[in-house]
Amino acid sequence: MTNPEAEALPLILAVDLGGTDTKVALVDSRGRVVARETLRTTDFAAAEALVAALADVLARLEVDAGGRAVAVGLGAPNGHHGRGTVEHAPNLAWKGKVPLRDMLAHATGLPVELDNDANLAALGQGRFGACKGMEDFVVVTLGTGLGGGIVAGGQLVRGASGFAGELGHVLCVRDGRLCGCGRRGCLETYVSARGLVATYGECVRASSGAPQDSAGVGAPVLVTAVEVHAKAQRGEAAALAAFAITAAHLAGALVDLTLLLGPECVAFTGGLTASGETLLGPTRAAYLAQLPEGTPAAQLVFSTAPDATLAGAVALVSLA
Amino acid sequence: MTNPEAEALPLILAVDLGGTDTKVALVDSRGRVVARETLRTTDFAAAEALVAALADVLARLEVDAGGRAVAVGLGAPNGHHGRGTVEHAPNLAWKGKVPLRDMLAHATGLPVELDNDANLAALGQGRFGACKGMEDFVVVTLGTGLGGGIVAGGQLVRGASGFAGELGHVLCVRDGRLCGCGRRGCLETYVSARGLVATYGECVRASSGAPQDSAGVGAPVLVTAVEVHAKAQRGEAAALAAFAITAAHLAGALVDLTLLLGPECVAFTGGLTASGETLLGPTRAAYLAQLPEGTPAAQLVFSTAPDATLAGAVALVSLA
Repeated sequence: MTNPEAEALPLILAVDLGGTDTKVALVDSRGRVVARETLRTTDFAAAEALVAALADVLARLEVDAGGRAVAVGLGAPNGHHGRGTVEHAPNLAWKGKVPLRDMLAHATGLPVELDNDANLAALGQGRFGACKGMEDFVVVTLGTGLGGGIVAGGQLVRGASGFAGELGHVLCVRDGRLCGCGRRGCLETYVSARGLVATYGECVRASSGAPQDSAGVGAPVLVTAVEVHAKAQRGEAAALAAFAITAAHLAGALVDLTLLLGPECVAFTGGLTASGETLLGPTRAAYLAQLPEGTPAAQLVFSTAPDATLAGAVALVSLA
Repeated sequence: MTNPEAEALPLILAVDLGGTDTKVALVDSRGRVVARETLRTTDFAAAEALVAALADVLARLEVDAGGRAVAVGLGAPNGHHGRGTVEHAPNLAWKGKVPLRDMLAHATGLPVELDNDANLAALGQGRFGACKGMEDFVVVTLGTGLGGGIVAGGQLVRGASGFAGELGHVLCVRDGRLCGCGRRGCLETYVSARGLVATYGECVRASSGAPQDSAGVGAPVLVTAVEVHAKAQRGEAAALAAFAITAAHLAGALVDLTLLLGPECVAFTGGLTASGETLLGPTRAAYLAQLPEGTPAAQLVFSTAPDATLAGAVALVSLA
């Protein structure tokens, strides 16, 4: 922090609220993280408790960074930009509509912009990450659940509903797994950390005849997805099969997205991208195999800029 | 044509090229059809022959209207706006990439803009029809095949590929009916005039044990879809079942579209909309039943402005 020019850049508090972790950072206007902290989302049963914790984190980060934030940009599952709310988020403990934007503005004294977490990721990848300079792209968040942020013709697609991009709840398997949203067979019940673990459990039971409770039920989801990846890297058949099935489901959704939106790129972020080529390789192969002849393929990339979502807060607050 | 103001409006030749019929009209700049003619697309084995026929039609319509066209706006299946081509259209007899824009410009001496037929429909419904004044909507063409035109944030979504909106080829039934595009289970093999007729044949065979060639194979498709509608109106069980199955497939696709794009309205055009509430009623019911809780529903409407697609030529040439 000895560069006077860098110290003069305005700082934004970026919050990436996920089903498992909440990443908090001070980001400068060029998208660089200057201080950060991570909270466990599941430690906070009520939104009020998380908001209070975020205000405390802000104070600590401002001391670390030696500067004050001028605004807050927050991404949350089922976030509604226009209303500043988090509404009926199946992957959070909160019920109903939570006015998180105004709660956080009150707690911090700062202007706050809130959006869907995947929209924050799309803004970040478009301004600072894998989709820099592109006009038509989709960002898919692969974490506890699955989210989508769509940019078409250079504009974020929010829709008349304000809830566009809900890729996690498109139909994947008719009458399939029960989703947190109340429907069966949603894409995120198959393609997500939770989905991978469930598929791995099915593969283990199918190959070994082990009882139904042997698949790590109750174990922390992200840790277990990491374990499935480690098993696949060691060549375990059930783990490799689980990745192949997950990849085939994901590829089917990507073919439909390509047909509907014709994106130049689909970029993936989130915890499950740590599985790298173990997931991306078979996804790309299945995608190209399923794409109708004559339909231009999108690039499929796992983001190598994990802070791009946090940097999206810069684009979010300046767009407001 | 005694109003001097109306006579002074510029005329545009509008061409709506479908798999079965090609509608041709002179449209004024307020979107009103002043003269029209219909060609049978299937009468023309080669694009050159259709282009020559369109030039003849233009000359006749200009005599009828007592005025000259200043430009041509043409919508075609698999049309690419940027390149002015029709590319690998499964529902046309032509193979490969056909430079229809330049062929028609040469034949008519007029500037020509070409786009996907469903994009023409979307431009027309947005400027003159069911979606007038809306920023976020989807227009679905239900004819021989099924097409989609997407408007997001007031902009037509063409995608980096130039082929966005290909709703007809999203997956409906895994390993289902063989589509003209080469894949199996595409939406338009179930939800279209052809799809309805095929489903009706299955329903008749399932209920009566009749032999497989009893379902009108070889009969003209649109005529036969009209017959299925007439049978449904008379209360025939197999025809009602065919509409219910078609509606359920369509509703599933509309739920996914709503999740991805959050449109205010989905408007339908094309020959199959003549079936009215027989199709729209069960589609709306299935759509509302399948939509996840908390997801705002789009209005579903069958366009009552059949000339809106032709009127889209006005928006197409003025956008160029």
